[in-house]
Amino acid sequence: MKQYHSLGLRLDLIQQEVFLLDQQALPQQESWINATELQDMISCIQKLKVRGAPLIGVSAAVCLGFLAQRADSADSIRQAAQALRAARPTAVNLMWAMDHLSPLAETPQLLLETALKIFREDLELCQRMGAYGAELIAEGDGILTHCNTGGLATAGIGTALGVIRSAWEQGKKLQVYVDETRPLLQGGRLTAWELERLGIPYTLIADNMAASLMRAGQIQKIFVGADRIAVNGDFANKIGTYNVAVNAHYHQIPFYGVAPYSTIDPACPDGTQIPIEERAADEVRGASGSFGSVIWAPAEARVWNPAFDVTPQALITALVTDRGVFKQEQLRAGILKSLHQTSN
Amino acid sequence: MKQYHSLGLRLDLIQQEVFLLDQQALPQQESWINATELQDMISCIQKLKVRGAPLIGVSAAVCLGFLAQRADSADSIRQAAQALRAARPTAVNLMWAMDHLSPLAETPQLLLETALKIFREDLELCQRMGAYGAELIAEGDGILTHCNTGGLATAGIGTALGVIRSAWEQGKKLQVYVDETRPLLQGGRLTAWELERLGIPYTLIADNMAASLMRAGQIQKIFVGADRIAVNGDFANKIGTYNVAVNAHYHQIPFYGVAPYSTIDPACPDGTQIPIEERAADEVRGASGSFGSVIWAPAEARVWNPAFDVTPQALITALVTDRGVFKQEQLRAGILKSLHQTSN
Repeated sequence: MKQYHSLGLRLDLIQQEVFLLDQQALPQQESWINATELQDMISCIQKLKVRGAPLIGVSAAVCLGFLAQRADSADSIRQAAQALRAARPTAVNLMWAMDHLSPLAETPQLLLETALKIFREDLELCQRMGAYGAELIAEGDGILTHCNTGGLATAGIGTALGVIRSAWEQGKKLQVYVDETRPLLQGGRLTAWELERLGIPYTLIADNMAASLMRAGQIQKIFVGADRIAVNGDFANKIGTYNVAVNAHYHQIPFYGVAPYSTIDPACPDGTQIPIEERAADEVRGASGSFGSVIWAPAEARVWNPAFDVTPQALITALVTDRGVFKQEQLRAGILKSLHQTSN
Repeated sequence: MKQYHSLGLRLDLIQQEVFLLDQQALPQQESWINATELQDMISCIQKLKVRGAPLIGVSAAVCLGFLAQRADSADSIRQAAQALRAARPTAVNLMWAMDHLSPLAETPQLLLETALKIFREDLELCQRMGAYGAELIAEGDGILTHCNTGGLATAGIGTALGVIRSAWEQGKKLQVYVDETRPLLQGGRLTAWELERLGIPYTLIADNMAASLMRAGQIQKIFVGADRIAVNGDFANKIGTYNVAVNAHYHQIPFYGVAPYSTIDPACPDGTQIPIEERAADEVRGASGSFGSVIWAPAEARVWNPAFDVTPQALITALVTDRGVFKQEQLRAGILKSLHQTSN
């Protein structure tokens, strides 16, 4: 029987249960959460115990697939899909998966098979992105990445981090620089943990240090993920990505977004149309996780805490997708529009 | 008798003692440290219990002034000046103060009087910078600042934050955006605390969010401090300043450095000659202070942790000094060279 077992997600096909590696607890603890029930999955998504646009989509898909087997009615399946779809507002893969599965509510078995296909497909998409992206990396490159886009963000080897891993596994010597990614520290906690496991040399920095590394000539390429890609190529990704893109532009360093085709939102003409989730003030007033919980700012400090920002097409050297690498000129010429049309 | 009592530094002229507000303990605790003895002052400087280039210089100066009254010999005074001078490598005000006082080792009373004059002068320099800088600020401006450059960084109202305060006290409505300033969080801890005390509206952000605010049109001016200014106008300041400057340039937002003339290093032709202090890896692996101590990254994570970066003249709209505002063209034409010559 096919194993559904990735770095951050495990399925029990016999018991029809979904288990998530608690990413808020990493790297201090590796604890698995049973997120089979609808409310448990929604809670894990909202609390970022599962995160990464592709992995959120896959996790919600298989959760819905198992729920469908136990559901009283097609209506209750559709309602569950709606509730999962609304759990986070920015990542499009979740919406894509729910919109894909919801019409299958009358045929629960087909719905589950389709959900499992989404899981398997995500593995393959990662491999393809890795292969296309690795061609862009040269021996000895210093590579900057932001947030976490690896095995914890997808069902496979990852998007941006999957590209880096693929190049490394081809034998290219690399030095990876990891933005810690305030406020939730996905770089410092998760990407550092993944790179340690993989044995890939890396250096952790605070987000505001990357510009100095670029000026010093230490960074040759930048790879980041994407949570939603507009048809013109603008994309939303973890807060701080736009800051990196501006610096890349100024220092004339190639800047690549890496994401599967399901991250493209055909209904979204450009980045101004992407809703940006705002999160709780205490995330910026301090830091909290399995490592402890601290507040360093004045308790009453007013905070602005957007979870994402939008990087415009003009700052993107190319998008690396499972369908190939699309350069800025191609994005400007509307290639994503035709790409998505052929996917449906 | 003249009071020597600022937000972060108090002198007892009768007992000849120096007290520092422990800036590592803020904003949770307001505790004062007796830093009268040489080793205590050096330790406070190295542990950043006292920080801010001007305040470090003033604190070391008055410490040396009192030490001189109790010293056995002029040699021991000169040795103490040398030890203080070496406590931190980047800020030039400390070196300037020690180089100014050390030749007075044969005349301890004159040395103390000169140290106290440096304290009083710093107050006046802040007022003058505030007055010059406030003219650049318009009603309703959104202003971004980085690190802490206020009453905790100087003996007076501050450099960049002094400018903002001066504009506020002129009745201009402002919205201040405060970079938290990883890794040591001087913005999130200290600037937020000062602005709360002053009643000036502010919003705290993670460093990587400022670019999005600029793109959204929320930032009209940027004011930062400086720890060492080269003769061509390049300046070292808290890590992350260069990142802000690149973003300001891209978004065409005026970017101002604010510092007294004593921050100019006449021996330093340009920014490449400024040594950059590197600090401990655990500062980036987590966060530590009176609020607690947490490590969120893998314990073995390799880290790069420069305390400062250098912003080149080409990205500086103008320098605001106590002698006036010097625009980029004037910096390029060498105005700082002649300015410093007239100060000696």
